[in-house]
Amino acid sequence: MPTPARTPVTVVGLGSMGAALASAYVAAGHPTTVWNRSPEKAAPLVEQGATHAVDIREAIAASPLTLACLTTFDATLAALEPATDGLAGRDLVTLNSGNPAGARALAAWATGHGARFLGGAIKNVPTAVGEPDTLLYYGGDHAVFTAHEATLRVLGGDTRFLGTEPDLAALYEQAVGGTLLPALLGFFQGAALVTQRGLDASTLVPYTQKWLEMVNSVLPTFAAEIDRGDYSAPLSSVGIFHAGIPYDEELGTGNGLDVRWHAPMHDLLRRAMAEGRGDQSIASLVELLRNPA
Amino acid sequence: MPTPARTPVTVVGLGSMGAALASAYVAAGHPTTVWNRSPEKAAPLVEQGATHAVDIREAIAASPLTLACLTTFDATLAALEPATDGLAGRDLVTLNSGNPAGARALAAWATGHGARFLGGAIKNVPTAVGEPDTLLYYGGDHAVFTAHEATLRVLGGDTRFLGTEPDLAALYEQAVGGTLLPALLGFFQGAALVTQRGLDASTLVPYTQKWLEMVNSVLPTFAAEIDRGDYSAPLSSVGIFHAGIPYDEELGTGNGLDVRWHAPMHDLLRRAMAEGRGDQSIASLVELLRNPA
Repeated sequence: MPTPARTPVTVVGLGSMGAALASAYVAAGHPTTVWNRSPEKAAPLVEQGATHAVDIREAIAASPLTLACLTTFDATLAALEPATDGLAGRDLVTLNSGNPAGARALAAWATGHGARFLGGAIKNVPTAVGEPDTLLYYGGDHAVFTAHEATLRVLGGDTRFLGTEPDLAALYEQAVGGTLLPALLGFFQGAALVTQRGLDASTLVPYTQKWLEMVNSVLPTFAAEIDRGDYSAPLSSVGIFHAGIPYDEELGTGNGLDVRWHAPMHDLLRRAMAEGRGDQSIASLVELLRNPA
Repeated sequence: MPTPARTPVTVVGLGSMGAALASAYVAAGHPTTVWNRSPEKAAPLVEQGATHAVDIREAIAASPLTLACLTTFDATLAALEPATDGLAGRDLVTLNSGNPAGARALAAWATGHGARFLGGAIKNVPTAVGEPDTLLYYGGDHAVFTAHEATLRVLGGDTRFLGTEPDLAALYEQAVGGTLLPALLGFFQGAALVTQRGLDASTLVPYTQKWLEMVNSVLPTFAAEIDRGDYSAPLSSVGIFHAGIPYDEELGTGNGLDVRWHAPMHDLLRRAMAEGRGDQSIASLVELLRNPA
């Protein structure tokens, strides 16, 4: 019995992530067409076996399914615009960053021209594309997701459908991504501290990993507090964090590090104390984030 | 053959963590003596089988090993001072928060009065005390660690010795802890965003957990860059993060959330760009944290 033919796939946008996506499809045996504004990015993929479309119209025409992996929704729209009259009957999946409004606008434009739209996000680095544990999630046309689920799963084993609103992936992307730079800066600050003592930053890694695993283990409790709006039986209180402010500041005064990035976080803690939240859960800070002073 | 007698242990300071430590020792069959400035905190532990010392002198005298779990090193010193002349020949282990200077000062005081000192930290919440995965680390007198390793391991299966300097646990505590509030605020901000759309904060948990696991997976790469001082082959560049600034700001302008806590992080990114680090690894921010402008 012959192997069922793999769905032809077009990948538009060949930055490091787009190139990783296209590579994964070539490796998985999908007829893969690629297009990028600067065509030299296509060369290594053509070597692997991809086809280089001469323009975006040809790229869209080549496959029933197009994945766009550009920097923003605006960039995606600009890239696809010359192919507008070829969109009808095509399935468009986006995997760029961007805000929910951008996702809604692009979805409206694409469906207005007869395409079906699915907005996705990949929650990992390019080198993790195709791994069984790599998470991608999608929101939009459920029929697109079900029709192409096996094809989408080539990009990561943990592939999920969030719901039928086209901006849900962008919404969760924005909601999830807010921990990245702050968590990394916390690690870099710790690295600055231990390297000052002649210890390698690498010695800090297992402890920080364990610490972030601990953070992960308490998120369900904090989320439940937020969903109930009840912060009265805290796992960890605003007061405990507030008491730690001088300890944070000591990193600057005692070690000459730049700790100014903590100042507005400390302001939030002080505002929460002033609102009488000292004995409430630290998760009650969500109420302050919702209501700028 | 009788079970070897468990080492008698004294726990000083019965806040939520100290009480959890004392409970773990009672449960593990160690003769356990407890002391707290406000004695009513001892009552539930006495019910479990602990002995309540009438004063700190009696507490120190009761066991070869005393664990102090007060709020700060200053508070520990103040609590122990009345027992100064009973310290000789005793082993003192601290499990409070506090900076490295505080750990060094307490160690000097304790060893000056004939005690052996080990400074520790528990990297988890009180409910995790005693779990096989719970991390505790210690720095200071190696003979104290080896003599009491099995007793210390009652508090958590992942019990480590960092080195012979008495402030190493405090140093790593400070270095590791810097990710906590920033990572939590990132999650609370995400929770504010999804709940605005009528979605539960709980729906965000698995994606944030996955994201923090991804962060954990890239920490060794960033640490190696920092240790080499070579940021020229980035997994993720300063420029990528810098390009995301408007996207962060949109959370405030588009959704009415308080995103002011991002501002100084954005300033760091802008300073790094101005220093020509756009194509360098995001880990090069450590250089800015080391050198306040």
